[in-house]
Amino acid sequence: MPSRDGHLALVGFLQAQNCTTIPAAWRHPDARLDFMTADYYQHIARTLERGFFDIGFFDDRLAMPDMYGGDHAHTVERGIRCVKLDPTIVLTTMGLATEHIGLGATYSATYHEPFHVARVFATLDHITSGRAAWNVVTSVNDNEARNMGLSEGLAHDDRYDRADEFMEVVHGHWDTWDEDALELDRNSGVFAHGDRVHRLDHQGEHYLSRGPFTVPRTPQGHPVVIQAGQSARGTRFAARWGELVFVSGNDLVRAAETYRRLRAEAETVGRDPDSLRVATLVFPIVGQTRSEAEDRRAAFDALTEDIDELSLLSEGLNFDFSTKNLDDTFSAEELESLSGIQAIRDRVVERTGGEPTVRDFMEVTGRANLSHALVGDPGEIADHFEEWFNTPACDGFVIGSAYQPGALESFVDLVVPELQRRGLVRAHYTGTTLRDHLGLAVPNSGDWRRPA
Amino acid sequence: MPSRDGHLALVGFLQAQNCTTIPAAWRHPDARLDFMTADYYQHIARTLERGFFDIGFFDDRLAMPDMYGGDHAHTVERGIRCVKLDPTIVLTTMGLATEHIGLGATYSATYHEPFHVARVFATLDHITSGRAAWNVVTSVNDNEARNMGLSEGLAHDDRYDRADEFMEVVHGHWDTWDEDALELDRNSGVFAHGDRVHRLDHQGEHYLSRGPFTVPRTPQGHPVVIQAGQSARGTRFAARWGELVFVSGNDLVRAAETYRRLRAEAETVGRDPDSLRVATLVFPIVGQTRSEAEDRRAAFDALTEDIDELSLLSEGLNFDFSTKNLDDTFSAEELESLSGIQAIRDRVVERTGGEPTVRDFMEVTGRANLSHALVGDPGEIADHFEEWFNTPACDGFVIGSAYQPGALESFVDLVVPELQRRGLVRAHYTGTTLRDHLGLAVPNSGDWRRPA
Repeated sequence: MPSRDGHLALVGFLQAQNCTTIPAAWRHPDARLDFMTADYYQHIARTLERGFFDIGFFDDRLAMPDMYGGDHAHTVERGIRCVKLDPTIVLTTMGLATEHIGLGATYSATYHEPFHVARVFATLDHITSGRAAWNVVTSVNDNEARNMGLSEGLAHDDRYDRADEFMEVVHGHWDTWDEDALELDRNSGVFAHGDRVHRLDHQGEHYLSRGPFTVPRTPQGHPVVIQAGQSARGTRFAARWGELVFVSGNDLVRAAETYRRLRAEAETVGRDPDSLRVATLVFPIVGQTRSEAEDRRAAFDALTEDIDELSLLSEGLNFDFSTKNLDDTFSAEELESLSGIQAIRDRVVERTGGEPTVRDFMEVTGRANLSHALVGDPGEIADHFEEWFNTPACDGFVIGSAYQPGALESFVDLVVPELQRRGLVRAHYTGTTLRDHLGLAVPNSGDWRRPA
Repeated sequence: MPSRDGHLALVGFLQAQNCTTIPAAWRHPDARLDFMTADYYQHIARTLERGFFDIGFFDDRLAMPDMYGGDHAHTVERGIRCVKLDPTIVLTTMGLATEHIGLGATYSATYHEPFHVARVFATLDHITSGRAAWNVVTSVNDNEARNMGLSEGLAHDDRYDRADEFMEVVHGHWDTWDEDALELDRNSGVFAHGDRVHRLDHQGEHYLSRGPFTVPRTPQGHPVVIQAGQSARGTRFAARWGELVFVSGNDLVRAAETYRRLRAEAETVGRDPDSLRVATLVFPIVGQTRSEAEDRRAAFDALTEDIDELSLLSEGLNFDFSTKNLDDTFSAEELESLSGIQAIRDRVVERTGGEPTVRDFMEVTGRANLSHALVGDPGEIADHFEEWFNTPACDGFVIGSAYQPGALESFVDLVVPELQRRGLVRAHYTGTTLRDHLGLAVPNSGDWRRPA
């Protein structure tokens, strides 16, 4: 059993876009449509803090979907994740409207220099007094590649090899300034100690960065690292670098297995398994009663459209689903050629046996609907959380939303009090930094340099 | 004469670092040393707004100085611009503490993908309801190159050729969404009009970016573009792209010439010269009386050190000044080899004739001291502003600070009221966006596509 303080981690899953991960979200009558204003995001931040969440974090995508039919017209017509703001700017607005909530954003390790990413998140950690987190992703999508200077995305394992080196550079820069480097003595004129600030001199296969870094050590030692890889290579990467690891899947037995594997892999690379927290994605739909919750789901289902699903599937797998009818099958060769998120493909193949149809993809993955939602009254949802937490199959939950901000508000108003009654969610914040909330120690300089 | 509304532009020159451009700033007894907190920057933002400034903008540097002696120990010991936070995060904190002031930051066109830069500043323009500006620079410094994946900086003219293409991509993305593209109609389910959102399909010599962009057209049409090049090539670039152009130099006749040249060059590339505002850098040191101002300057001078100047010169010119004594001269060949900011070298050569000494460089450039400050009582400083504005030698002033926030507060408390009495600074803000303040029209889509 992990040494958890009895509280489960609550992570808000956020999008700096026109909908949640569910494209139909913007059509919900209670959805707010001012998604390009600071007020919208600050309201969400305050809601998370009112619910004693550990952190809210943003996904990211450097392109709008247009793989389906090779055109973006349907994407903007139907509002399928077609807006995507820079998440670090949005996150900063949220930090200034709150005092405790952790603030995470996704930035790609594929399309930025590590010095830049290190500086953005170190700055955010200072400015928010120790509440910043970076979700590192390797970008998989051809559309992103085409916006960011490449004609197609990198191969899967290559991405992770580059990403390992990227992380070494980022962590190296974060360690540039010793904790006691700053002196700030006007009388002696000593600003900082020259021998406590170090160059990195990194010259690797993919990156070159010399240093010293221009941001002193941050309140959290360094920002918390979030990671979400679920392939074999992704799990290895997460176990090496992740401090908050984001997983998905609805099967308790399998989740418990993933949980054990992540912790075991962390030990293999020389980490204390308690230096990583695993949170699993759920989309709670709660009502005062179960039937109210069911009604809410049904009302939401009426808003979804097949094209939402087909567009997101095309995007996730780098394959144009408009080239097939709903009952056409995929050959083994076609399945092999899918170059996007491998976990999606693997799940569909496993669930359906050999040759899945387009409809199978739609049903198994359900990226654009709430077929996998956790529907119930507050007690039922709390039961689920308690069971998974105690198994243990996770250390906490990533809370996805059908629409914003209403679905999140319902969770905070109805489920959080029940979780508090059970002692699973804190009654008040006891610390000030994100590491405090998650029970993660401040890392020592160089902790990350473990044998790979 | 430009069609100005009678007001001169006021631009706050800011640094997200441990000092102002003057390294000694942090040693001033009234300097605040909490330069890694939101409160520090928000206080500065409120001060600018209290003084009815048009905008505050941040310079940037992706490295700390360590060219002098090839080592950073002296840099951090003496606090010579050794801290440099990400300016866009800092800027966002300032936007949320204010309602009117424009918000500009420098991002390099050398080390980012244009899609990324376009998205960061478009996001900021939405989040601040039309107050964002981007200061485009081409990075000149070898230390930056070594942090950002290159072994040395690019050659001068190459940088500008790349930068021209960079600007085409950025502006192309900003034009992706027509102004009337968004529909947001839940009933019909039409989010935006498919035919009013466009792909860019840019495939140039240096950049590849396809689009569509993921941020709808911003409140200002696009963020205001700031530019500061002063070489011949830099002026051409500024005249093509700059909307707020930042110049320096203390000679009125020469400034008037630069001002005419910039406007003429803008006309040459098919722009209305009134679509660009020229602001010149000054470091005002004001007192209730002239002698109080002189005392303030003298007190500040006592804080400066030769090594401040030598370190910044080394950085600006990519040359290690520790290899020479103060009275050693530079040969014509050595002068030719200096690869940094050409305007600095050219000014020194012109001022001293053939073979300048190190001391000449220190005296002429004065990058680390206040030898070029504008010292006087409020009336004297206002006289200077009025004369330059009416000549015309500029449309406004970039206000540098000896130290923060005190020097800026003195300017706002003492000089701004005098400028208001003379009708040179507004009595209140009449618009809400940065373009409103500067009297710059909202650009039409494609306005930037003029014959080069």
